[in-house]
Order: sequence, then structure tokens, then C-alpha cells
Amino acid sequence: MAIAANTSPDGKPASRPGSRAALDRLSALVDSDMKRVNALIIDRMDSPVALIPQLASHIVAAGGKRMRPMMTLAAAQMFGYRGDAHLLLAAAVEFIHTATLLHDDVVDESDLRRGVDSANAVWGNKPSVLVGDFLFSRAFQLMVEAGSLRVLGILSNASAVIAQGEVQQLITANDIATDETAYMEVIRAKTAQLFAAATEVGGVIAGASEAQQQALDSYGLNLGIAFQLIDDILDYSASQADLGKTVGDDFRDGKITLPIILAVERSTQEERAFWQRTLEQQDIRDGDLAHAMVLMQKHGALTESLDRARLYGKAARTALASLPDTPVRTALDDLIDFTIERAF
Amino acid sequence: MAIAANTSPDGKPASRPGSRAALDRLSALVDSDMKRVNALIIDRMDSPVALIPQLASHIVAAGGKRMRPMMTLAAAQMFGYRGDAHLLLAAAVEFIHTATLLHDDVVDESDLRRGVDSANAVWGNKPSVLVGDFLFSRAFQLMVEAGSLRVLGILSNASAVIAQGEVQQLITANDIATDETAYMEVIRAKTAQLFAAATEVGGVIAGASEAQQQALDSYGLNLGIAFQLIDDILDYSASQADLGKTVGDDFRDGKITLPIILAVERSTQEERAFWQRTLEQQDIRDGDLAHAMVLMQKHGALTESLDRARLYGKAARTALASLPDTPVRTALDDLIDFTIERAF
Repeated sequence: MAIAANTSPDGKPASRPGSRAALDRLSALVDSDMKRVNALIIDRMDSPVALIPQLASHIVAAGGKRMRPMMTLAAAQMFGYRGDAHLLLAAAVEFIHTATLLHDDVVDESDLRRGVDSANAVWGNKPSVLVGDFLFSRAFQLMVEAGSLRVLGILSNASAVIAQGEVQQLITANDIATDETAYMEVIRAKTAQLFAAATEVGGVIAGASEAQQQALDSYGLNLGIAFQLIDDILDYSASQADLGKTVGDDFRDGKITLPIILAVERSTQEERAFWQRTLEQQDIRDGDLAHAMVLMQKHGALTESLDRARLYGKAARTALASLPDTPVRTALDDLIDFTIERAF
Repeated sequence: MAIAANTSPDGKPASRPGSRAALDRLSALVDSDMKRVNALIIDRMDSPVALIPQLASHIVAAGGKRMRPMMTLAAAQMFGYRGDAHLLLAAAVEFIHTATLLHDDVVDESDLRRGVDSANAVWGNKPSVLVGDFLFSRAFQLMVEAGSLRVLGILSNASAVIAQGEVQQLITANDIATDETAYMEVIRAKTAQLFAAATEVGGVIAGASEAQQQALDSYGLNLGIAFQLIDDILDYSASQADLGKTVGDDFRDGKITLPIILAVERSTQEERAFWQRTLEQQDIRDGDLAHAMVLMQKHGALTESLDRARLYGKAARTALASLPDTPVRTALDDLIDFTIERAF
């Protein structure tokens, strides 16, 4: 399913050449730091209990773009940070993210993660829950080492909000009365909060001013919202290989995402019955996913979700404008395009 | 099944009159603080996502003895602490404990906790995992408020060790080759570490010296080991009502605890086949639990486990002796007796 990517509410050319290249520019700028963060991640996931590094390295080795720790490193670099604490924080952010993924996969009963078998599919739910707890604890140990109570406050708040968002998502699942406001609260909490915190703490450790910390937080938050909106669109459009997960997972899980909300809002009576049967009663038959995608197309639900993502991208861009004009700021600006145009 | 409680390796009268009274004496000394901690717990488990306080209050309301937060409060009182940070830490310790219980019940697939339906039995595994994560995050928020990086270090280390111990326990389950050393490592990590940290941080916040912090840690660690040894004995001896859980849970889960290890070590060939069938192959039939208890009795496995608990109780008492001679120290001394003699 193709989505028209040539219009954008902010009037910028929507599909800059090479959105992957945008990510690569940021990667290049933080490359030497990132190598040290990766070494730190390997070091700190170790344990005399062999199953822990086995399971943790399974999910870490599966890759992922390391966007969150990159944002921490980039923010520190923007303020000319000279110490090593940003490395600890970048690793902590990635550990929180990884712990969340492990618990998510248990909650969603997922079999695939980043294109390979999920940890719970290989080892079962029990070690996935406990290794998630271990990585979460390790994240706090790393933050303690970094020595900033302010950072600990930001990331412990973010962690509480994330868990809250995940519970909220669980409650809205299979409920087609869920509206856009409830959906936005969920993705702001479960996804955007960690993007915001990851970016902010890089500035905090590097001595950014209050206003600058605020701008970093706003950049991360808006980028995170755009990121999740796109993720939810991709669940109905990307090829499994591109996304590293099964298309239609959200549909099968009864997750009420924006494309669904918009399609349900605009549905005929007959269409509404379809959404009730598939999402609420979870009676999903052959061809239902394809039909769901046809209905989304018909009502412009995917295109409009993409437009929404672009609006948040624009807000992220605005926040960035108040920050020091450095190469890393340009790369963070490009990251917005990458986030929105990826996989299109 | 009765266990002779009138002998003790340390030569003290083993069954002091009224072990429950020992707990009550400590409760009385920290009573006004504990009321404020309970209010704080109620306040901080709140969330706009209603399922979170519902589920959390279910497990918190089910009671529990609040031993860990009491130990934090007692340690702070021992050093004449005058601030409020110990309340935050006591609540944090209880939240870590509660989060661990929620995740444990998911891992153990338990139906009962503290005599009532477990959260996972009522709401399912998913919210139990996520509300556990929420409470764990809240614990760190409380610690940040208390403002001591040293405390954050102690409790984040403890959390990592706990998760490690839980994974180790998972690995040794159903493996009757597990020896006493492996078992001791597991209970030291999964249980005793939090008792140690809970006690130590009370002293840290109150300005105890390094040596005194060490003694508090040692008291808590040894008490925690004794506590878990007794818990593992009670699984084969207490009435369900006394314990608030089903007798024989460990047996059915194939958990290799000290009573099992000692009985297996001393088993005849025929008995060994019984343990292999029940614990390793998990082929458990009517009458097997009763037979397991007969074999433990025959080989003195429960009595010897109790003796072991008393040895750790003695070590806890020794650690306590170097600390300021205050009413709360006497109550902590009594707590050792409560821990060991409870439910006998």
C-alpha cells in the first residue's frame, strides 16, 4: 500500500533525497561515542547468570537504530560536553528501552522483534520479564554512576509515564470507542516520553540552560510522537522485511491506533460492524486485514495520519531552532525527515 | 507437620514467648512513621490510569508485614534521624518489594498471594507486568526525592541483584542436582539483598558511619537469609491460612529449596527416583506432597534447615551488637526471633 509522500502541511519538500542518509549523518557525528556506548552496553549486560547476557544480547544484537542513545549523545555534543557521563546516560536510555521491549513482547505475545524471534518466543515469558527487570535496574546503576540527581529524576519520571502509557494502551485495546485524544495520550506516554528524556538528559549533563533543556525535551517529545504515528502507519503498509515485524500485528492485537480511529470515525454502518467484529470481538478471518487496509485507504486514514506525523515533525523542528547552530543540530533536523519518511 | 523448636545451635532459648509480640514491639516504635509511610504509599501508587491504583492497592491492601520499610525506619531512628527522607525511602523499599511480588507471581503462575487471589489471577499477566514496572519506577522517583545518590546506588544495585537471583532460581528449578551453594546464592540475591539494602539506607540517610552502615547491611542480609530459609521450610509445614499461600507450592513448581536439597542428598535410590519423577519430570500424583514431607521428616531436612536459619539469625544478632544500644536495636534483635519462630 503506497502512501503519497509528496505533500506536507509544513510546505517543505516531504521526501528529501535519502532519508536513510539523514540518519547516517547523525550516526557519523556521534560515531566514536556510540562505539564506546556499544561497548558499555555489552559490558553492563553481563552477569554471572549466563542466561541474562544470552537473552539480553539476543535483543540488543538484533539491532535497532539506537535512535534514543544517539539523541543523548547528540544533545551533549551540541553543548560541547567534554566528560564521559553522556556515555553512561546513553547506555542507560538504551537499557530502559530494551527492558520496555522485553516486557512489551510478553504483554503483546509477540513472536517477532526486529525481524528475528522475540526473546519470549525463544526463552518464554518468565526470563523475559526478569531480564527486563535486570536491565531496568542496570539503567539506574548507570545513571547513579553519571552522578546527576536531575537526570535520575527525569528518567525515573519518564519510566513511570511509560509504564502508565502501556497500561492505558492495554485498556484501550479492542475498544473502537477510543478517540484520538486517548490515543495521543498513549503514544505520548509510551513512546515520546523516552525520546524527550533521552534528548534532555544529554543537555542536562552538558550544562544546557533551563530554556535549552526545555527545547531539547520538546524536540524529543514531538519527534517521538511523529515516530510512533509513523510506526502505527507502517503496521498497515510496510513490507515485513522492511519493518522487521509482521504487517497487521496491531490489527490482530486489536490495538486502536490513529489509522483505525480515523477509519472508524468515517465508517458506514456496515463498515462499523466490520470493525466491531474484527477489533472488538477479535473474530478475524482470511482477507480481513486486506479489507481493513482498503477501508483505511478509502477514508484517507493513512494519509491523514502521515499528515499528523508531519505536523509533529514541524513542532520538533521549531523547538530545535532555538538551540545552538551546530553540525549536530543540522543532523537532528535531518533526523526528523528520516523519522517521517523512513520506509516510504 | 511439627518442627521441634526447642533446640538451637546458638544455645539461646529458641522459642521466646510470643514471637508475634516481638514484631509488635518494633511496630510500636516506628508506628507514627509507618502511618505516614502508608499514606505515602497510597498517594504514590495513584495514577490517572485507574487500573494502576486498583491493581496496586489489591496487593498492598492484602497486607504483608511491611518488614522491609520497618527496617528502614528503625535504622533511621537508631541514629536519631530528624528529617522526612526516611519515609520516602521506606515507601520506595516497599514499592520495589511489591513490584517484585507482582512479577514473581507472573513468573510462578501463582493464584494466591497473601491469602487472596494474586493480581495476575484477577487481572491477568499483562497488567501485572506493567504495574510492576510502574511501581518500580515510582520507587526510583521516591529515592530521587530523598536526594541521596548513595542510597540510589545501594537500591539500584540491590534491584539488579534481585533480578539476577530470580533468573538463577528459574534456571535451578526442576534440577535436583542443584546444591546448597547454588541455593544460598539464590536466596541471598532474591530475598536477603533487599532486607540488607532496606536497613542500610535507613542508616545512610541518618548519617551512620561507614562501619555502622556495614553492620546494618550485615544485619539485614543475615536476617533476610534466615527469613527465606524459614519461608522455604513453611512451604512444607504451615497451614495455608497461617502462610497466606498454598502449602506445597514450591514442590509443585519444582523449586529446589534447602529442605529438598537435604532430602535428596540423603535419599536412597528409590527415593531419588521419586524426586526425579516429581521435581524433574514434574509428574506429580495424589499423595506425592505428603510423601515428600515424610521423606523430609525422615532425613531431618526441615529441622536442619531450621538450624541453618538460626545460624544466620545469630550472625544478624552479632552484627547488631556493634550498633548504638537503643530501644529500636532491642526491637530489631527481637525481630530475629520473630523471623525464625513465626508460624511455629
